[in-house]
Amino acid sequence: MSKRRMLKLGANINGVGNSMSYWKHPQVSTEASVDFEFYRQQALIAEAGKFDLLFIADGLYINEKSNPHFLNRFEPLTILSALSAVTSKIGLVATLSSSYSEPFTVARQFGSLDKLSGGRAGWNVVTSPLEGSAKNFSKDEHPSHSLRYQIAEEFLEVVKGLWDSWEDDAFVADKKSGVFFNSEKMHRLNHQGQFFSVQGPLNIARSKQGYPVVFQAGSSESGKELAAKSADAVYTGHDSIEEAKLFYRDVKSRAKLYGRSAEDILIFPGIGPIVGRTDEEVERKYKEVAELVTIESALDYLGRYFEHFDFSQYPLDEPFPDLGEFGSNSFRSTTDRIKKEAKEQNLTLRQVAIRASTPRGAFMGTPEKIADLIQQWFEEEAADGFNIRTVVPGGLSDFVELVVPILQERGLFRTEYEHNTLRENLGLTIPVNRYAAESKRALEPTQ
Amino acid sequence: MSKRRMLKLGANINGVGNSMSYWKHPQVSTEASVDFEFYRQQALIAEAGKFDLLFIADGLYINEKSNPHFLNRFEPLTILSALSAVTSKIGLVATLSSSYSEPFTVARQFGSLDKLSGGRAGWNVVTSPLEGSAKNFSKDEHPSHSLRYQIAEEFLEVVKGLWDSWEDDAFVADKKSGVFFNSEKMHRLNHQGQFFSVQGPLNIARSKQGYPVVFQAGSSESGKELAAKSADAVYTGHDSIEEAKLFYRDVKSRAKLYGRSAEDILIFPGIGPIVGRTDEEVERKYKEVAELVTIESALDYLGRYFEHFDFSQYPLDEPFPDLGEFGSNSFRSTTDRIKKEAKEQNLTLRQVAIRASTPRGAFMGTPEKIADLIQQWFEEEAADGFNIRTVVPGGLSDFVELVVPILQERGLFRTEYEHNTLRENLGLTIPVNRYAAESKRALEPTQ
Repeated sequence: MSKRRMLKLGANINGVGNSMSYWKHPQVSTEASVDFEFYRQQALIAEAGKFDLLFIADGLYINEKSNPHFLNRFEPLTILSALSAVTSKIGLVATLSSSYSEPFTVARQFGSLDKLSGGRAGWNVVTSPLEGSAKNFSKDEHPSHSLRYQIAEEFLEVVKGLWDSWEDDAFVADKKSGVFFNSEKMHRLNHQGQFFSVQGPLNIARSKQGYPVVFQAGSSESGKELAAKSADAVYTGHDSIEEAKLFYRDVKSRAKLYGRSAEDILIFPGIGPIVGRTDEEVERKYKEVAELVTIESALDYLGRYFEHFDFSQYPLDEPFPDLGEFGSNSFRSTTDRIKKEAKEQNLTLRQVAIRASTPRGAFMGTPEKIADLIQQWFEEEAADGFNIRTVVPGGLSDFVELVVPILQERGLFRTEYEHNTLRENLGLTIPVNRYAAESKRALEPTQ
Repeated sequence: MSKRRMLKLGANINGVGNSMSYWKHPQVSTEASVDFEFYRQQALIAEAGKFDLLFIADGLYINEKSNPHFLNRFEPLTILSALSAVTSKIGLVATLSSSYSEPFTVARQFGSLDKLSGGRAGWNVVTSPLEGSAKNFSKDEHPSHSLRYQIAEEFLEVVKGLWDSWEDDAFVADKKSGVFFNSEKMHRLNHQGQFFSVQGPLNIARSKQGYPVVFQAGSSESGKELAAKSADAVYTGHDSIEEAKLFYRDVKSRAKLYGRSAEDILIFPGIGPIVGRTDEEVERKYKEVAELVTIESALDYLGRYFEHFDFSQYPLDEPFPDLGEFGSNSFRSTTDRIKKEAKEQNLTLRQVAIRASTPRGAFMGTPEKIADLIQQWFEEEAADGFNIRTVVPGGLSDFVELVVPILQERGLFRTEYEHNTLRENLGLTIPVNRYAAESKRALEPTQ
């Protein structure tokens, strides 16, 4: 008998916000992206709301046109390690790039966060969309989209292999005999691949949840394939429930092709709820942030998805320019969607830019309305959970205070943490150590 | 008028200990190296003792012969980030290798720890002594000792350059005008060197202490040169005050050759004090740990300094074998010292091995005796401070409880933190941002 499916919730903490202009809101602290106290407060709010996890996004290249939050912010592993010391149940998920890191270091740092937090770590594998990243890492060029995903696949394989370096009962630490560990339960990966050669063993053992939970955030074909094959969860973004359902079904069926079950991979669309006690309050909150957007900043924000392309060279009120294949090596799924929508709906450049910069999404309204939408998306299998972004000041605490209790009353969301590890709270299976599995198989009688 | 010179103290936290056998002591928790609560307690003891800093050492290669602490331990940046959330004044220093890391990532992670902690971070630059490290990082071979130091020098230059990416007044965050930052105060490093090409800017600004404090830990010629040129502090180890004074004078004079003053670089010998209320208590504590050492583990421990050389192939009670140049690509200053002592004192292999594994150092005795020794080393310029290792259970709390008050009474050590940043507590100057310095010079009238 399988357990009842439960809604999952994550909180994306991002200082001065996702947009170019959010920082200008009178209630936003302009220091938020490098203020530990702000992150601590948000983490405590999310944990009080019984959220499954906190999520810290990341990027490796900035320039004059970058979103203010990107210019000066905490590095994900360090801020999450600090937050591990002031929280006790909530998961801690960090973005880290497989294109500009070493698998040994990534396996170690996430392994260490996982131990520090008692099994609450998660890794959002990204391939770094921005071309400029190469210039910060002594590389001649940014690998192509498909090469980045080939690297990512091998990278993830190596990291998981390193996480299995020690079987769970390797450290016997018997003071009498003087045996600290059983060397038969220490394993070298001896990986020799196309991109990496990594011997191991890793110098940290597995946590209570086995591995950190692996998220994947690209929605391109390669992204979906990587997720279906190797990830525990997917971050995505959709404008409509129809689109979300298609994506959901697509990823779950791909997972089945890799011999996995639909429950082995969780789909988390990102949403930026604007919740108010009345429709007027919702509209007021929306206007307060929408009015901060200038067309210049909207063009900059849009440009970032297209390798910091300068859109200001085009007339604002004519159809969105035809860019051909341009932009497809960065945020491919996003740029494909923007181009498609612009064409289908015959949008002007101004309309496309403003739409990209303003947080007017489906999840605006009274607590009941937002709970209804969440329930619908969840029950109609458009989502297993949601990644909640803050798009208006106090957005997270409003959600926790007003929406979570309704979801709890409806039996959709927990009223208390069931477990101490992220993996278990998400209802995912703790992976068996590959070597322990091998020796178990070896011991089984032949049929 | 220069301020009175004050003693500095650091606490090296290392779980199940520095030796092969310490974990066998009945009072040692065998889980200590991956137990956040143990690290938290040690950090709070050191902070209660007004220590300048905590230090977490590191390594990137293990095998069956490794010290138990090395097999399964926290990664330094993650554990220090977690400790930043539960401490408020003490410095947080982590070892990180310049041979197997990216300058952009190192600059960011230390920059982030520095912001998280309000200016309490320190980076101990090491070049990774162990040959095997290469195999964990997709490298064909471990760079030679001198090449590693060439890489380290450029690496450090790049990291410091990235730390200056933003002038301190770059983020104006003026909500009225909509200007988040002054783009003239954002700087690209555009470094193109022999080993690294790094454009920048870094996506985190400087902390209150300017840069994390830079430590250097190699005592070879190349190590001393790197320290004299670029480090704020040096970790070292000496058997006698005479040797320590020579080293002290040597590094300080080298620093002067680089146009620095003697106060710009602090020398921290590592010591493992065994303190007891009586001589009998001291002897008992020493014996309890010394008796845990077996000759097999002593040979393994010694072997680690020589690229995990198997010393068990030699007779124990004959003179220490002549190894020629072997071993000089790893822990060069240590292996040179071992070979020199063995020859000069005509030691057997057994004697050399036992000596390397037992913590019998000069700093054993009653609190007064240890305070006397510390005072002597400090006043005779053999040390600016000490890095205190725990070699007997409760070693750190004994030191804080029994020795620190004497040092405070004698006016050698603080009774309260003077500042909130590590750099200021160490009496070091906050570095001026290179670009701010440039524009200041440009504004000065010509003479």
